[in-house]
Amino acid sequence: MPSPKEIVNTMMATDLYSQWLGISVLEVGAGNCKIKLTVRKEMINGFGIAHGGITYCLSDSALAFASNSHGPQAVSIETSISHTAKVMVGDILTAEAKELSRSKKIAFYEVVIKNQEHKIVSLFKGTVYITEKNW
Amino acid sequence: MPSPKEIVNTMMATDLYSQWLGISVLEVGAGNCKIKLTVRKEMINGFGIAHGGITYCLSDSALAFASNSHGPQAVSIETSISHTAKVMVGDILTAEAKELSRSKKIAFYEVVIKNQEHKIVSLFKGTVYITEKNW
Amino acid sequence: MPSPKEIVNTMMATDLYSQWLGISVLEVGAGNCKIKLTVRKEMINGFGIAHGGITYCLSDSALAFASNSHGPQAVSIETSISHTAKVMVGDILTAEAKELSRSKKIAFYEVVIKNQEHKIVSLFKGTVYITEKNW
Amino acid sequence: MPSPKEIVNTMMATDLYSQWLGISVLEVGAGNCKIKLTVRKEMINGFGIAHGGITYCLSDSALAFASNSHGPQAVSIETSISHTAKVMVGDILTAEAKELSRSKKIAFYEVVIKNQEHKIVSLFKGTVYITEKNW
Repeated sequence: MPSPKEIVNTMMATDLYSQWLGISVLEVGAGNCKIKLTVRKEMINGFGIAHGGITYCLSDSALAFASNSHGPQAVSIETSISHTAKVMVGDILTAEAKELSRSKKIAFYEVVIKNQEHKIVSLFKGTVYITEKNW
Repeated sequence: MPSPKEIVNTMMATDLYSQWLGISVLEVGAGNCKIKLTVRKEMINGFGIAHGGITYCLSDSALAFASNSHGPQAVSIETSISHTAKVMVGDILTAEAKELSRSKKIAFYEVVIKNQEHKIVSLFKGTVYITEKNW
Repeated sequence: MPSPKEIVNTMMATDLYSQWLGISVLEVGAGNCKIKLTVRKEMINGFGIAHGGITYCLSDSALAFASNSHGPQAVSIETSISHTAKVMVGDILTAEAKELSRSKKIAFYEVVIKNQEHKIVSLFKGTVYITEKNW
Repeated sequence: MPSPKEIVNTMMATDLYSQWLGISVLEVGAGNCKIKLTVRKEMINGFGIAHGGITYCLSDSALAFASNSHGPQAVSIETSISHTAKVMVGDILTAEAKELSRSKKIAFYEVVIKNQEHKIVSLFKGTVYITEKNW
């Protein structure tokens, strides 16, 4: 079985959308990871702040990396996110994914995103289904 | 007060991220809308299918348009999405947002996304807080 | 395989909590059901209105009946509820569960509860895991 | 303004449903609390395990106590729960509510329930709207 780091490297290599977002992987372990991105101008919405989708996408990538890191491929089945503070162009967002619970078929993760001032900007919870296919 | 259509046009004009996604607005009414996008290669994840963030972003834009269409500005506080089928490059996704309930301060919406074969690919629920600022 | 109605009758017979709630089953089909209860005094919270758990419990029972009605046993993995209007002692609540999407292993349901004036009081979404055991 | 403990005592005194559940309050602070209950026979569902509503109700009471403890009355607008392990008759469940984020109008909480063996049995997230009325 490849290591968590090798699995995430393999995933990132073909994950064109995470590449477009400018995600860089800071840490990876079995069931967790820490990744970041810098908010760019093309990520804003009609209010002039970051589109809610940006923190979701960063969280969802963190979920994918953390939940696949054990070896078996895992797919997202249900996710939720709360936006707790505005995100502006230039903000540096760091997402930390943590495994809350894992059984044979289902696992649960939380992802917290903080900005460069260590303020929480979003809270995400993700549920995945663990397939029988390995990385 | 501007019409739902005028409000959404104003929002879209400065919503650079929805523009990057290639969202086009098909219909807008008070509390609802129908928008679409075509999945491009730069939207895929490490599994070679559309990143879960793409259907979320489309849903979240639909939520923003539907919930702001009445006049008062509304901001998302909690959203959830379930991914029910794979989305591939070239798929044409249509999102329909519907208002489920609206009080003075809080409103709830559902957004269903279907692909070009009318298959449901995601189910989204969004809660917004209605501010005292008008468009 | 027993019919949806037979499965729900079997479930209700030993579901002591649904019995305590006073749930009665109005309709059952493959993937859907309609059930009701009347709010009693011992169901109120510190605000003098029905505890948020009451609409959740009614929704969760509706989810269990609808998702098990096909034959294979299904277990809830993630559920969410929004409370959209106050519920008072004496209110008659009717919950309708509808199957939104079903694959081999995972299925999604919505449950809408209305009071006796046909006002929506809660919106519920439930995700279940379908086991290999049959009723 | 009454203390967090006084507010929760006031709430519990008229919260007939939390009384029926047999909830006892172990700790209360500004924005957090720890409460428990013992699962009784009348709380089981058709699978012979605790109804999913029981952990939800315990979590929802914990949310109510934690979010009202600051003084202003708060009402739940959106909650979600994941069931991560079976709960049996006789299990002693302890719920801990923690404030994740709080602004003037909206606040977010998580509630984790563990059984007597310190195993996590449910993960709950709650969003409340803070009213202008004080306890």
